[in-house]
Amino acid sequence: MEETDPKPAGARGPFRTRATHHRDEAEVEFSRIVAFSDGVFAIAITLLVLALEIPAAATDVGEELWDQRDSLFAYAISFAVVGRFWISHHRFYSSLARFDNTLMGLNLFYLAWVVLVPFSSEVLGDYNENTDATIVYAANMAAASFTFVFQINYAFRHGLMRESERALAPRYAGPANFIIAAIFVVSIPVALLSTYAAQAMWLVSILVGRRISDWVAARQGVTPD
Amino acid sequence: MEETDPKPAGARGPFRTRATHHRDEAEVEFSRIVAFSDGVFAIAITLLVLALEIPAAATDVGEELWDQRDSLFAYAISFAVVGRFWISHHRFYSSLARFDNTLMGLNLFYLAWVVLVPFSSEVLGDYNENTDATIVYAANMAAASFTFVFQINYAFRHGLMRESERALAPRYAGPANFIIAAIFVVSIPVALLSTYAAQAMWLVSILVGRRISDWVAARQGVTPD
Amino acid sequence: MEETDPKPAGARGPFRTRATHHRDEAEVEFSRIVAFSDGVFAIAITLLVLALEIPAAATDVGEELWDQRDSLFAYAISFAVVGRFWISHHRFYSSLARFDNTLMGLNLFYLAWVVLVPFSSEVLGDYNENTDATIVYAANMAAASFTFVFQINYAFRHGLMRESERALAPRYAGPANFIIAAIFVVSIPVALLSTYAAQAMWLVSILVGRRISDWVAARQGVTPD
Amino acid sequence: MEETDPKPAGARGPFRTRATHHRDEAEVEFSRIVAFSDGVFAIAITLLVLALEIPAAATDVGEELWDQRDSLFAYAISFAVVGRFWISHHRFYSSLARFDNTLMGLNLFYLAWVVLVPFSSEVLGDYNENTDATIVYAANMAAASFTFVFQINYAFRHGLMRESERALAPRYAGPANFIIAAIFVVSIPVALLSTYAAQAMWLVSILVGRRISDWVAARQGVTPD
Repeated sequence: MEETDPKPAGARGPFRTRATHHRDEAEVEFSRIVAFSDGVFAIAITLLVLALEIPAAATDVGEELWDQRDSLFAYAISFAVVGRFWISHHRFYSSLARFDNTLMGLNLFYLAWVVLVPFSSEVLGDYNENTDATIVYAANMAAASFTFVFQINYAFRHGLMRESERALAPRYAGPANFIIAAIFVVSIPVALLSTYAAQAMWLVSILVGRRISDWVAARQGVTPD
Repeated sequence: MEETDPKPAGARGPFRTRATHHRDEAEVEFSRIVAFSDGVFAIAITLLVLALEIPAAATDVGEELWDQRDSLFAYAISFAVVGRFWISHHRFYSSLARFDNTLMGLNLFYLAWVVLVPFSSEVLGDYNENTDATIVYAANMAAASFTFVFQINYAFRHGLMRESERALAPRYAGPANFIIAAIFVVSIPVALLSTYAAQAMWLVSILVGRRISDWVAARQGVTPD
Repeated sequence: MEETDPKPAGARGPFRTRATHHRDEAEVEFSRIVAFSDGVFAIAITLLVLALEIPAAATDVGEELWDQRDSLFAYAISFAVVGRFWISHHRFYSSLARFDNTLMGLNLFYLAWVVLVPFSSEVLGDYNENTDATIVYAANMAAASFTFVFQINYAFRHGLMRESERALAPRYAGPANFIIAAIFVVSIPVALLSTYAAQAMWLVSILVGRRISDWVAARQGVTPD
Repeated sequence: MEETDPKPAGARGPFRTRATHHRDEAEVEFSRIVAFSDGVFAIAITLLVLALEIPAAATDVGEELWDQRDSLFAYAISFAVVGRFWISHHRFYSSLARFDNTLMGLNLFYLAWVVLVPFSSEVLGDYNENTDATIVYAANMAAASFTFVFQINYAFRHGLMRESERALAPRYAGPANFIIAAIFVVSIPVALLSTYAAQAMWLVSILVGRRISDWVAARQGVTPD
């Protein structure tokens, strides 16, 4: 937390808004971006529970609880996806050497989609066999995934990553990155035919998505381990 | 996180309430103010999603979702404004060299307006063509903007900023600072004539507000980059 | 964040539960207690906004908004009180040199009362002329205040505070500390006669409470500055 | 917060996903896991208050408040249990020397059960004499407890703990660890006979649970202090 300020006076002031900040020179600011993002993730993932609810004056509590099974399924899948989003975000930010204002803006744009998940998830839980509800959910997740990939690409192309990460170019900028986003996009037309098939695709993506993208990356010569 | 305590015993105790604390001498306390503010921003921005809701037993889910478009517009605009508030707060606090109790009080007063945004935003989403709803939203945003400017001015006038920032006096204390607040204030009478025109002003302020205040500052001789 | 582990193996393990930890030796743990408390304060203060709400299909939006004035009053007073609680907590923890498990338990007990405030505040906003609602609110605030004072006294008596703070004994352990709690307690019987009088007492406590306790402390020879 | 990167380029990049990270080499990442978990705990414990609610147009406010006593009981017990979960989590993470991706996944799985508590608690508050509500609550708490024990065992068996903690093997991996989880499991069949008896078991577990597990551990030769 030692602050170093080696540049001449004014060189890193808050109004040098187009400047790039190295994370060691602007540790407090960098930490705040990460802390704010973590806070948003933690709140969004916790608000998922608000979709579960039974009326306060039910005659058959057991049946009301049983009726929550679709909402519980939506809760589980959303918790897994948002949890994975958070882990990816966590890894991405640990690979950054510096940040700029555009990245902060892109990050906010990305978070705006993450914050919508409790809404999409509640709709899916209430209407899990409904085509529109399935499409809204898939579209929300696809938008979050794409804006995240966009953020990574921006950071990669503008040299914001650590040197050690730049060797992984094909991985960061290549197709492996788009697979989870693509699965959600493809599930949209699939939902028109069968909401079950679309939701099964999501489950597959959660269970083996990482393995698929590792495999694509490996074919491009990027060893994941 | 190394704590330095060079002053004589008691000199920086919690009951030296009128004292000014340098951030390096009171790192833990300074971090907590920033962390608390970040937490409030993160929660307020995430609670915006609670304004989106469809009934649990709808007959036409697609139509219910479509009816949420005004709420989604309010969500988008509020997310953008609160996100921008957060970025400004982030920059302002990174320019501080020290803080005092008055600043903490002003910060809480400012945050009280930020926390109201999910309410104003929900009202706007439900009644976006209603004059009263538009005025309440504009008033909330104007109050938040003005209390923030007030906080900056206080910090600037009481020497709480880093020396390197003091060269930017006209920027901090000048009119460029008031432009976003002013747009929200002016939109209040405009809303009496047309809620669309008022809301269009907010969109303009979000999209080009920063550029306008950079331009005003530049005319005063403060180069933003 | 440098970790120092000078004690023999096992000496500060998590199962040495009755041990006292110096904050420099257990910086991560200490930070987590503070961060968790800050999170709870930030969320509780932000949830206050959920008490403000207008129906989604109102015929007269302006009137519905006007009907929220009592809720807005409750919001304002609760935000001020919780904000002050947070500042006091912030000061108290910055004066600690070490902590133990009992203090962590007392802190949780204290936070349990803080977390109840959004409920009490919503009730007060809906029924601000109701005696029961006024009493519930006063009792909640009194319980929070007393458990906080109890926490301070525990820390003071068990030598958990910095040496420099111990000189302030009469202040920490003396009557000045109880004044805000006492005002809330006294307002309970007052509410039986007049809810307005009780609520006026709270306003006075918010506006001049600090000054009163400074004055009491000064009479005991503890200069607040 | 000084970052050290002694390994060759790429050796600790985000795509070395199967690697184990020492907390000092990956301080930022480690802090984020802890901060995210703390955030989730803080939000889940604060959302408990949302179970308390009285209608906005009650005729007898006092009676409505009195009707909340079961919800207040559920609030108190849930706050105590989640608070204890948080303290245990806090201790466990302070005993870690390193972490890996599996631990992050297990931690998310654990948190998914913690986040469900506000729902189970609300159901319990509304229907505290109902067998199904009591079982759902006990099952939720048992699932949280077991996934936490599982996380500890994983960390212990994969050498993620500090050397100084490894001496406490029987404590970490032994039966003392399962006692609180076991009490919740046993309370499930008990609830079929009497919800009061089941809930009394929880109270006992909260009040003397720690003492029981200290006693079991002591019999295995692990002195808790």
